[in-house]
Amino acid sequence: MTDTFPRELRQALAETSAPLLEGADALPYLDDRSGAAGAAGARALAVVRPGDAAEVATVLKLAHRHRVPVVTRGAGTGLSGGATAVDGCLVLSTERLNRVVEISPEDEVVIVQPGVINADLNAALEGHGLYYAPDPASHAISTIGGNIATNAGGLRSAKYGVTRDSVLALDVVLADGTALHTGHRSVKGVTGLDLTALFVGSEGTLGVIVGATLRLRPLPAATATVSAYYPSVRAALDGVRRISRTGVVPAIAELIDHPSLRNIDENTGSRLTDGGHVLLLVRTDGHAAAAEAEDVVTALRHTGGDAHRVTDEAEAERLWELRRSGRGRTRPLWTVGEDVAVPTSQVARMYEEGERIGRRHGLDFASVAHAADGNLHPVLSRPVPEGVAPTAPAPPELDAAADELVRAALALGGTVTGEHGVGVTKRRWLEDELGAAGLALQRAIKAVFDPLGILNPGKAI
Amino acid sequence: MTDTFPRELRQALAETSAPLLEGADALPYLDDRSGAAGAAGARALAVVRPGDAAEVATVLKLAHRHRVPVVTRGAGTGLSGGATAVDGCLVLSTERLNRVVEISPEDEVVIVQPGVINADLNAALEGHGLYYAPDPASHAISTIGGNIATNAGGLRSAKYGVTRDSVLALDVVLADGTALHTGHRSVKGVTGLDLTALFVGSEGTLGVIVGATLRLRPLPAATATVSAYYPSVRAALDGVRRISRTGVVPAIAELIDHPSLRNIDENTGSRLTDGGHVLLLVRTDGHAAAAEAEDVVTALRHTGGDAHRVTDEAEAERLWELRRSGRGRTRPLWTVGEDVAVPTSQVARMYEEGERIGRRHGLDFASVAHAADGNLHPVLSRPVPEGVAPTAPAPPELDAAADELVRAALALGGTVTGEHGVGVTKRRWLEDELGAAGLALQRAIKAVFDPLGILNPGKAI
Repeated sequence: MTDTFPRELRQALAETSAPLLEGADALPYLDDRSGAAGAAGARALAVVRPGDAAEVATVLKLAHRHRVPVVTRGAGTGLSGGATAVDGCLVLSTERLNRVVEISPEDEVVIVQPGVINADLNAALEGHGLYYAPDPASHAISTIGGNIATNAGGLRSAKYGVTRDSVLALDVVLADGTALHTGHRSVKGVTGLDLTALFVGSEGTLGVIVGATLRLRPLPAATATVSAYYPSVRAALDGVRRISRTGVVPAIAELIDHPSLRNIDENTGSRLTDGGHVLLLVRTDGHAAAAEAEDVVTALRHTGGDAHRVTDEAEAERLWELRRSGRGRTRPLWTVGEDVAVPTSQVARMYEEGERIGRRHGLDFASVAHAADGNLHPVLSRPVPEGVAPTAPAPPELDAAADELVRAALALGGTVTGEHGVGVTKRRWLEDELGAAGLALQRAIKAVFDPLGILNPGKAI
Repeated sequence: MTDTFPRELRQALAETSAPLLEGADALPYLDDRSGAAGAAGARALAVVRPGDAAEVATVLKLAHRHRVPVVTRGAGTGLSGGATAVDGCLVLSTERLNRVVEISPEDEVVIVQPGVINADLNAALEGHGLYYAPDPASHAISTIGGNIATNAGGLRSAKYGVTRDSVLALDVVLADGTALHTGHRSVKGVTGLDLTALFVGSEGTLGVIVGATLRLRPLPAATATVSAYYPSVRAALDGVRRISRTGVVPAIAELIDHPSLRNIDENTGSRLTDGGHVLLLVRTDGHAAAAEAEDVVTALRHTGGDAHRVTDEAEAERLWELRRSGRGRTRPLWTVGEDVAVPTSQVARMYEEGERIGRRHGLDFASVAHAADGNLHPVLSRPVPEGVAPTAPAPPELDAAADELVRAALALGGTVTGEHGVGVTKRRWLEDELGAAGLALQRAIKAVFDPLGILNPGKAI
């Protein structure tokens, strides 16, 4: 970086409506929910909030010329440190790129800017009979741009795919300010290498996404919810497999283990633990939602589940909302959360491994799971002892246990991260999963897009 | 290439069970259905038919050292010249890599070698209650490896996605013989850049796929077929849109225009044209297949369709088979076939453009369309006059008309190729679609994987 950069940047942005944020004004833009920037003591040079693609290009051209690192961020709801500031970087916030540009019911697509909140997009689609399927649990607070950067999954992934499956085309500004359009507005298209898929999940390392053409789906004619209590995680997972053998593809199948149920109860005042040990929530959708729900109930009862259809729609919505956002902390805890995914046949073993690892390190283990796609969100925790400040460094067992958990997932044929991204917090396992040849290729591809390495350095790959 | 290459290759393969094919023995391996190799007079050095990944690595190491171009081919059913020999190349046939390695009903995945025929895979899955969804019309004769290389679509794409959406992981041998594994056995996973998606559709330019982990789906509980005759293409497309507004997502929606119906009748002795002008065939599937079919019938009648459910299963199968493979040639024709895809709202205009272009050049225009995903397969043709040899060069109008057709698709926001691939026949439009920056990036990525440019040179990108 040269000394003239801040001045040149201020000049370049003088005619835009958003001033550069510096000093204390920049602080709210440094971290995500991982706290990685704070932990590293990273300080940003400034925060820019471009209002259109041209402003993004202006910023990147200048940053490129001065070799200033640029970290793009949406709402900062990430859990892996993918959007946290690195020392001396320019933070590029997409918060002002928040327009739904075009809704086309005819083509069943929508064009959005990256800063649009996922749930706001679906609100904007109301009345069109269409919706955007990818629904990370953070859908009320996370942006489409962030969802694309991490290839966010969600509850509906097993039936409707992850973010990548709904992104048809992207408008990107490359590291040197060049504009690039990838993909197409049609559902199909195989011209050249799939750069759209390459950008999805690239965590801000290849370019800055300034527009996305997303595929929409017709709103299902109906939905139905089934609740089933089981005496064990293993029995509940047998239930999920039994559903699959009926030919029903559930829109959602969420497993909540006992510690997670207890946590939700403590945090929200709900009484989910009154119903039983482990809860499996299943949603069917489409014209046959009700009939499929009956088949699901039968399949779950055959596997020992205390299953019934939740016919009260408000109660069903409450259950889903508890699953999405009911977990929390009622007392000071040291915690580490993970995002492993394993082949569906290995989910039960992953739970067993997690419980074993927790016990060995004197930690509590709890996990919800997207049961139909093998993605678990385990939390290992220990109460902060009385008299100890909650901000005190966590004991090393948490880190050791997290490491064992991730290695267990890899040993079961799984992956380090199902949907949260690598960011900074999961980089240490990168080579274990990708292999040396794979990682070298990934870094060489990164260098094609960003030869100076200014985009989100030290992240993801 | 050095003179010692053929000898070294023969030595290296001496201990394998498949001899090198040369001279006349190599001829059946030079071309695909485009005839591009024959047209270019390309001659291959030899054909290798490796029996496992190690033999593929041996071949590539040697070819790499001697800088010999390698063209990988499956069954040679491609229509774009993606797998045709280039002069002096080594053809690598996957025909002996034809094993279904593992079927896992638990994980709903299958691991296959690339030479497995698409339909054979589904035959092998019988009895497991699962199937592999991507179904190019060539499914009875094309290989999974070829399907992956072109990101093949098919009839079920609008509901179940294209090949990319079913490929979870790949085993690849890189240009220099290095083994690479991409992806994961779990449905989800976002570690690093999505190299799996990059290989899907890369037409043999990045590496040789030696294994694929494919996602399976539960066989639908039921299917139902609806047949609807319409007075015009436009009215039939209105019907497709009306279906969408009911919330039903058809498994298949195929439009067959009048010239295509006539062609099928002439070629197979069917009497489809007796029923009406234009035929729309719709399939629903799942638990609600029958109820959805009733909704489809209602929607289609509302838009002027002479619609009814085809309750005779054998008749339904016959109709689908006529759509898939009924077209042919009963007399000598000069033809050019395309594979454009456009946003679904533009399909009617694409038909109009095609008919106009045909008229202007004195050519017959016919097209089937995957109506729900906007992918058309137009054929422009002219009978070869009596007394002229069918092998005589086609008149230049065919080429000019094809060019106009593709440009019209691009102008409508569409793509040069929906599912067949670029190969050699569609390279001339590559930059029009990808843009200069996009194409430069694609070529730089290719150079990361294959710095010497030995893999399928002159193809795809």
